[in-house]
Amino acid sequence: MRLLRLGAPGAERPALRTDDGAFFDLSPITDDIDGAFLAAEGIDRARTALAAGTLPALDPTGLRIGAPIARPMAVLCIGQNYAAHARESGAEPPAQPILFFKHPNTIVGPDDAVRIPPGSSRTDWEVELAVVIGKRASRLAGPEDAAAHIAGYTVSNDISEREWQLERSGGQWSLGKCGPGFNPLGPWLVPAEDIGDPQSLRLRSWVNGAPRQDSATSDMVFDVAFLVWHLSRFLTLEPGDVINTGTPEGVALSGRFPYLGAGDVVELEIDGLGRQRQVMTGPEGEAA
Amino acid sequence: MRLLRLGAPGAERPALRTDDGAFFDLSPITDDIDGAFLAAEGIDRARTALAAGTLPALDPTGLRIGAPIARPMAVLCIGQNYAAHARESGAEPPAQPILFFKHPNTIVGPDDAVRIPPGSSRTDWEVELAVVIGKRASRLAGPEDAAAHIAGYTVSNDISEREWQLERSGGQWSLGKCGPGFNPLGPWLVPAEDIGDPQSLRLRSWVNGAPRQDSATSDMVFDVAFLVWHLSRFLTLEPGDVINTGTPEGVALSGRFPYLGAGDVVELEIDGLGRQRQVMTGPEGEAA
Repeated sequence: MRLLRLGAPGAERPALRTDDGAFFDLSPITDDIDGAFLAAEGIDRARTALAAGTLPALDPTGLRIGAPIARPMAVLCIGQNYAAHARESGAEPPAQPILFFKHPNTIVGPDDAVRIPPGSSRTDWEVELAVVIGKRASRLAGPEDAAAHIAGYTVSNDISEREWQLERSGGQWSLGKCGPGFNPLGPWLVPAEDIGDPQSLRLRSWVNGAPRQDSATSDMVFDVAFLVWHLSRFLTLEPGDVINTGTPEGVALSGRFPYLGAGDVVELEIDGLGRQRQVMTGPEGEAA
Repeated sequence: MRLLRLGAPGAERPALRTDDGAFFDLSPITDDIDGAFLAAEGIDRARTALAAGTLPALDPTGLRIGAPIARPMAVLCIGQNYAAHARESGAEPPAQPILFFKHPNTIVGPDDAVRIPPGSSRTDWEVELAVVIGKRASRLAGPEDAAAHIAGYTVSNDISEREWQLERSGGQWSLGKCGPGFNPLGPWLVPAEDIGDPQSLRLRSWVNGAPRQDSATSDMVFDVAFLVWHLSRFLTLEPGDVINTGTPEGVALSGRFPYLGAGDVVELEIDGLGRQRQVMTGPEGEAA
């Protein structure tokens, strides 16, 4: 089962896609897929309604896919959580998780065009496994308690402007992580119980069809359960919060590939979580 | 005129206080004081309703004061924005603004008790002028355009756990800025037009009645108009977003004062923006 949001930006409607590819309207059980829905056992209710046959069928033809979660209170990001990526960025793998934030207004749909900001010459891609919190998490006893607080997973592109991230804000990274449209999310939220082990997923990215990143979540320095537990010791995670769990090697920052330019096509995929495709547009608003 | 929110946590109601100290219920014109209210010219509507005499009088006796803005989409923070504080922190004044974020769920009322987190030995205070955005700001032409995008100002305590900020997250500061209750805000939102020049305000803090910080916003490295313009070049500021504009010297991190302990009373005041008072409680939940 997959939960998604279909429609124009700001006017998305909740929907459900079965493993067989059939689409259903989730409006009978919720106005939106958001933290309140997840906290109120929304995924269980969706499953029950699907089984009971009470959801209207939906034709998704021509409908834009939005981000699968509406209005997360926060987007938390973990830096350098794959050893090889830490090294290509010029750092050793971290001894403890590195936390920073993106502004939640960076979230857009998985296939929305993304504008390279005026003045940017170092816009970069980052495929990441995103965790969506389902239940408020504060001071969990251990990593084994994390699963009960995770609603599900989706694909995230943690787009980064490297000059702004590394050279324009005194070493604090967020400035380069918050450009408009800098967090394509989706296509869908897959409930945690439908994914099983989140540490065995291949994640990949391409630019103009050429491979860039190709790794697996088994290579994370700190796994999902550890991250949720660890963060909960320092702050409270809210239902609907998104955790971008870090990106593997193969980004432009490595020096091995050019940064993104207008007209470039970025694609991202994670096993079982679907695929994104963004056309990069230039500062003038159109693909070159 | 001052806008505020009165009532139990999560159940605050919008209110207005006149310069003469009379309170009125704002419910006839809005359900809450939030980004949508501010973006819809809410401050002008409140002023008009007050002048027309259509707001019911309100007795604030016994009502808790909440944070004056509900559900900001983001809490942006500027680091080391007073030269003397940068130096007491062991750094030179920055050449450009330093941006990081707090989780918005850290926001609490100005007089709520704040719990020192379990495991913390370096919990610190930071009085700051907070800017509340009134209108979406993206790529402003210059600092002179900032004023039209600012709703008003309030007092902020950017509480920080220094070990978590500086030693537990690879140099990214947010981990030490997000403890539960770590952002007392208020008591009220003063509209920008009622403040006039935001760069001539004295801001002070005390611990157990003894002075700690005593500075003025004229000492900011980057002033409010510059900050709003600068940020808008890299990201989009949303109505209701809070910008904590940095703290002056006189915090415990300087080594001149002890860190906070259970039972300590922190007070903060900014000219024209009112006063906060927090009792710190220990990990066991009660003042010593």
